This record gives sequence, C-alpha cells and structure tokens, in this order.
Amino acid sequence: MHQVASHTAVHPVAVPPQFPRFLHPVVRMKVLAGSPGTMGGLALRLAQTGFSLISLCIKISITGFSSISAFWFLVAAMVFQFIWSFSIGVLDTALLTKRSLWNPRIVSLVVVGDWVISMMTFAGACAAAGIVVLIHNDLDQCRSNHCGRFAVAAAMAFMSWIATTLSFVLAFWLFATRR
Amino acid sequence: MHQVASHTAVHPVAVPPQFPRFLHPVVRMKVLAGSPGTMGGLALRLAQTGFSLISLCIKISITGFSSISAFWFLVAAMVFQFIWSFSIGVLDTALLTKRSLWNPRIVSLVVVGDWVISMMTFAGACAAAGIVVLIHNDLDQCRSNHCGRFAVAAAMAFMSWIATTLSFVLAFWLFATRR
Repeated sequence: MHQVASHTAVHPVAVPPQFPRFLHPVVRMKVLAGSPGTMGGLALRLAQTGFSLISLCIKISITGFSSISAFWFLVAAMVFQFIWSFSIGVLDTALLTKRSLWNPRIVSLVVVGDWVISMMTFAGACAAAGIVVLIHNDLDQCRSNHCGRFAVAAAMAFMSWIATTLSFVLAFWLFATRR
Repeated sequence: MHQVASHTAVHPVAVPPQFPRFLHPVVRMKVLAGSPGTMGGLALRLAQTGFSLISLCIKISITGFSSISAFWFLVAAMVFQFIWSFSIGVLDTALLTKRSLWNPRIVSLVVVGDWVISMMTFAGACAAAGIVVLIHNDLDQCRSNHCGRFAVAAAMAFMSWIATTLSFVLAFWLFATRR
C-alpha cells in the first residue's frame, strides 16, 4: 500500500492514463437515471404501480369480463405487476439511503423479475388488445360489450409495460457493466 | 511507452493486480456462444428464419385467416421477422471470417432491431393465441375454424420469439460490456 502511494507520487504520468479506460463504464453507469436505487428508478416503480392499478380497477369494474380467458390473464398479469412493482419500490425507497446493499446478486434478481413481469404484462395487453380489435372491427359487436373500457385497460397495461421495460433495460445495463 | 514497460518490470506487484477486475467482463464476453458474429449466433438466426417461415406458411395456407385483424398482424410480424433474421444471418456469415468489422455501432443497431422484431413477433403471437383460446374455450366454435393450425402457427411464432430474444440479450451483453 505504501509502495503504491509513494510510487504514484514519484511517477505521476506513467500509470494513471491506463485506468480511465476500464473505470469509464463503472463511472458512467452511476449517472444513468432510472437505475435501481435511484430516484428515477423509484419514479418508474411508482408509474408501474399506478398504471397496473388503474388497469386492474377498470377491468374488474366491467361485469362479465371473466367470460374471456385473455381478460382473466390480463387481470392476473396486472395483479403480479402491481405486487412486484410495489415490492421493488419499497426496496428502492429503503435502499436510497443505503446504497452499499445493492450488490450484483440483488440486481440480477431484479433483472430477471422485471423481464418476467414485463413479458407477462405485454402478453396480457396484446391478447386483450387483439380481442378488443376482434370485437370492435372484425365482429362489430361493440354495443353489447364495453369496448372503450377494455381498450383503456389494455392501454394502461401497455403503459405499465413500457415503464417495466425501462426498469429492466437500466437494471440489465447496471448488471452488465458492474460485474 | 518505454517508461511504462520498464516500470512494471521494476515493481511487478504494485500495479498489475488492479487490472483483472476491469478486464474481466471484456475477456468473458468473447466466450459467450450465440453472440453476433459467432457460429451460435448464426444458428440462432437460422432458427428464427425457419420458425418464422413455418408459421407464415401455415398461416397463409388457411383460407379466411384475413378476416381477423390479429392474424393479419401475425403474418406481417412473421414477414418482418423472416426478412430481418435472414439479413442478419447473411451478415453473420460474411462477418464470421472478418471479425474486425463488428464494431459497437453495428452491434447497437442489431440490439435495437432484435428488440423491435422480437416485440412485434411476441405481440402477434400473443394476440393470435388469445383469439385461438377465445374461439376454442370461450366460444367453442372450433369445428368451423382451423384451431389446430392457428395454434401451431402461434407456437412457431413463440419459438421464433425465443430465439430472437436470446440473440437480443447476447447482443445487448456484448454492447454493454464492450464499450
């Protein structure tokens, strides 16, 4: 330790220029807003929680939604999305003060969880949107069905998916560059 | 240059231990099979091309598929998937011998393209699967429709999506760790 310190004082130019190249991604990564453990990351979790809750409330307020399997799937996906985003949001809040707890293992778990949840949400939203289009355009039976509300519920699910995908990409970037 | 070389010879322990930590991801990244520009990557492209072609052929062989918007979307997604995977497969083949051409800019384009195409394929597959389930389980009208073939076409689209997602993750990893 003493040898290194005295050495850099004697030859200040010889070694330092080689470090920034390897340190660069590590330094840049911390600036990315929205990564786990930042205020941006917490805002993304809040957005996911909010959109999934709105979608869920609209969906279950429609009588007879349960007669279509794809709508059931969307409701299940929204419940999972809400629980996941809320939990990680709480974790984010707790870790905002204790950054040292964010280790690669936790980040990798968040990456996998975000991916699974975002895919579930996207699948549910696409299936629901496909059926809304089927009822609205192809069968033209919108009067007896709640097309508008189904469409809004699907749109909210898509918004929730966008926020989750952003969280996933930023957590993946953190994981890939920190290791 | 000469100063640095002579320096590491004089103090061999002082500096080198700090390098492997930063070099590690760069070294590991090259080993990942399936990354762009490897034989595994080419195999993934072949799988994507094959599955999308099978799905497309099954879909357009069914008379009356065009009456449902979601099935039209799946056909369009499969066409895009086929063109994209085939093009990148050809690029992969050409670059297998000239590795130096793989630069971060090309990799970033492949990452974005893979993501867009995989999302389109997944959306089409989910919408089609939702409608097949609607016809099969909820409406019980499978006799007059080609449920089995529609289901196989959706399954092939899902297989194509899995291969594209693998390509995307590996290309993203290459991009995130190389920079």
